[in-house]
Amino acid sequence: VKAEIIAVGTEILLGDIVDTNSAYIAERLPALGVDVYWISAIGDNLGRLKEALERAWNRSDITITTGGLGPTEDDVTREAIAAMLREEPGVDPVLEEALRERFRRRGTDMPLRNLKQATLIPSAEAIPNSRGTAPGWWVKKDGKHIISMPGVRAEMYAMWDEYVAPRLAAMSDGTIILSRTFKTTGVGEGAVDERLSPILSSNNPSIGVYAKQDGVHVRLTAKAQSAAEAQAMLDERDPTVRSLLGPIIWGIDDESLEVIVGKILKEQGATLAIMESCTGGLIANLITDISGSSEYFKGGVVSYTNEVKVTIGVDPSLIEEHGVVSPQVAEAMAEAVRSKLGADVGLAVTGVAGPEPLEGNPPGTVYIGVSGVDGSWSSGGGFYPTGRSEIKRRAAYNALHTLRKYLLRIE
Amino acid sequence: VKAEIIAVGTEILLGDIVDTNSAYIAERLPALGVDVYWISAIGDNLGRLKEALERAWNRSDITITTGGLGPTEDDVTREAIAAMLREEPGVDPVLEEALRERFRRRGTDMPLRNLKQATLIPSAEAIPNSRGTAPGWWVKKDGKHIISMPGVRAEMYAMWDEYVAPRLAAMSDGTIILSRTFKTTGVGEGAVDERLSPILSSNNPSIGVYAKQDGVHVRLTAKAQSAAEAQAMLDERDPTVRSLLGPIIWGIDDESLEVIVGKILKEQGATLAIMESCTGGLIANLITDISGSSEYFKGGVVSYTNEVKVTIGVDPSLIEEHGVVSPQVAEAMAEAVRSKLGADVGLAVTGVAGPEPLEGNPPGTVYIGVSGVDGSWSSGGGFYPTGRSEIKRRAAYNALHTLRKYLLRIE
Repeated sequence: VKAEIIAVGTEILLGDIVDTNSAYIAERLPALGVDVYWISAIGDNLGRLKEALERAWNRSDITITTGGLGPTEDDVTREAIAAMLREEPGVDPVLEEALRERFRRRGTDMPLRNLKQATLIPSAEAIPNSRGTAPGWWVKKDGKHIISMPGVRAEMYAMWDEYVAPRLAAMSDGTIILSRTFKTTGVGEGAVDERLSPILSSNNPSIGVYAKQDGVHVRLTAKAQSAAEAQAMLDERDPTVRSLLGPIIWGIDDESLEVIVGKILKEQGATLAIMESCTGGLIANLITDISGSSEYFKGGVVSYTNEVKVTIGVDPSLIEEHGVVSPQVAEAMAEAVRSKLGADVGLAVTGVAGPEPLEGNPPGTVYIGVSGVDGSWSSGGGFYPTGRSEIKRRAAYNALHTLRKYLLRIE
Repeated sequence: VKAEIIAVGTEILLGDIVDTNSAYIAERLPALGVDVYWISAIGDNLGRLKEALERAWNRSDITITTGGLGPTEDDVTREAIAAMLREEPGVDPVLEEALRERFRRRGTDMPLRNLKQATLIPSAEAIPNSRGTAPGWWVKKDGKHIISMPGVRAEMYAMWDEYVAPRLAAMSDGTIILSRTFKTTGVGEGAVDERLSPILSSNNPSIGVYAKQDGVHVRLTAKAQSAAEAQAMLDERDPTVRSLLGPIIWGIDDESLEVIVGKILKEQGATLAIMESCTGGLIANLITDISGSSEYFKGGVVSYTNEVKVTIGVDPSLIEEHGVVSPQVAEAMAEAVRSKLGADVGLAVTGVAGPEPLEGNPPGTVYIGVSGVDGSWSSGGGFYPTGRSEIKRRAAYNALHTLRKYLLRIE
């Protein structure tokens, strides 16, 4: 089953927003037996959207759109589908009443322009929207489908989970695609590719190598008639990949470094505290994105000034002697926050996010400290300066890699 | 000048990564006199990529691709361009030597498979890559252009800034598009649309209304033969938009809440400290994404446990009496961190990110406290529960909105 995703919105073509909806959908389709061949973004333009829908209708079994279902004049997804299929949209009285009721409960009258959110064409059913006013459309005609969902993330996610995914799962009888990703650290893309050369030309499961912010990823992808069969193919190839890559693998599939580190802390029954300077709360933010992190995460301090570092317990003479961006201060910060917040392990980052140098250190200079019952470690030095957010992100992943090694006692 | 962007990589179609490169490019093209009409993503598949390039070649003046220039077998962008234009790729000796030199400096031999990164076709020039091994391609033929850049973000950004943007600027003689965005808070998309109805059907400048995480955005877009003319059109329409929207406008263009709050703090010569519970460092991370934030940001505490809150100075009896998720504790946290870190203003968030309830409060219950010389404020209550990251993000923006109002003394 061939699918294609069309994200609708001029704001995407203007670079005003990043289309994350398509990735959300694309990630979930293969396990439903649906392959995504094309993703595209089209502006709020009736003609071009109709043209894109027409091409999709001709080459794909399922077309999924997001966006353009709002109440404003810009929103033309319904109109474009109707025009493409040469059907006339009309107000559905049941949808209209539900919409009016929704506004009534909010204590306001329905603005007239919202009425278009209650329209349907003969080939379309409404998809309930539990989070907003715009119902989706599920169009079925000549054995093909168009599934239109709102662009607002929370509404789209809910509509997908509650309605679209279950209905697609019920329809599925095609080829299932499953994949497994091996995440590595410390080796470049080309070198990983060469290690894998004995199995690189294999077709099913096929293998792909990708450079990512947290290291190089290797993705194994199997196609089969059932999930069990695809799973078995992955399981069979798994040991070969592991033996070719060896201990550079740090995680599997959607395991992120913050998840891995959390797992290790839980297994060891250890708690963590963090003091961040240049990463400015990013590490704490990553760690607390994981549900259940309150089990092992005591808390963090964002020490954007030297006084804050000293308030938490860093010896000011260390800062004076070695400079605030130094391995010595990184270790002292880790130990101070560990002791202040009563955690088993302390992790700290001190560095220069830029754009200005700090005490003679150029942006991208970052030191990481870890402290615990096994004593203190530090690592770091200069990264390539690539802008503030990039430096923060690389420093944060580096800190998590360092913490993982410390916890696992890997040199 | 019509442009189209093609992001290459099966990982995008699998939802494994979000294509942020296209937004980076799309955002920068209008000011160079180039309009983006299509953005699409294609997998690492020679046939489909060639087909997409052919369609782009026929309908667009400039096609920009990202990705597929790596050394692995998956990387087929060069091959697809060559096939589409029916030209033969060959190794360029100058590029080859530069590549070998790059590996030599790293102290390793060049893997054989990297050699394809030194190939060109007759219509292509190499674009220097200051951050990685893969040069880009600038193809020029029959008055049309294909610009191919790597997919790795830092490499693509550098190539864009250092080479592609300046060259496009030198080429530009077409229509310039400029836009201005008015960011609002506290009013829904439909209501903003209705307020703007007197000017909504205007064509140039045109107007668009978009619901965003930090409020509803209104975008005014002007097309003209020169930047000065487009600017004048925006300036002329600007007061009308402001008078129709009134004080719900909190920011303009790419001003984010964290930038606005930073500006106000700088103007007032005030410093900020933050204590975050459920947002887990997200607010500090947002604030420290802004360069120059060290001028007004003293630091933050991520207080993921009650002990940490008490360590920083929250009265434990308040937590006992009102519960940790309460307006009283939010205010006490703001005051405690303000005093502990020696800042003028304290901002605090306490709430439930989920998925589990806390002390009987469901996920999405969030209280915000602000404290300063003008006394303490608190606000909050229940949001719609939409998952952990969404709750964190909404709570963070809410906190920044609250801080802005406190600083500006808006009720």
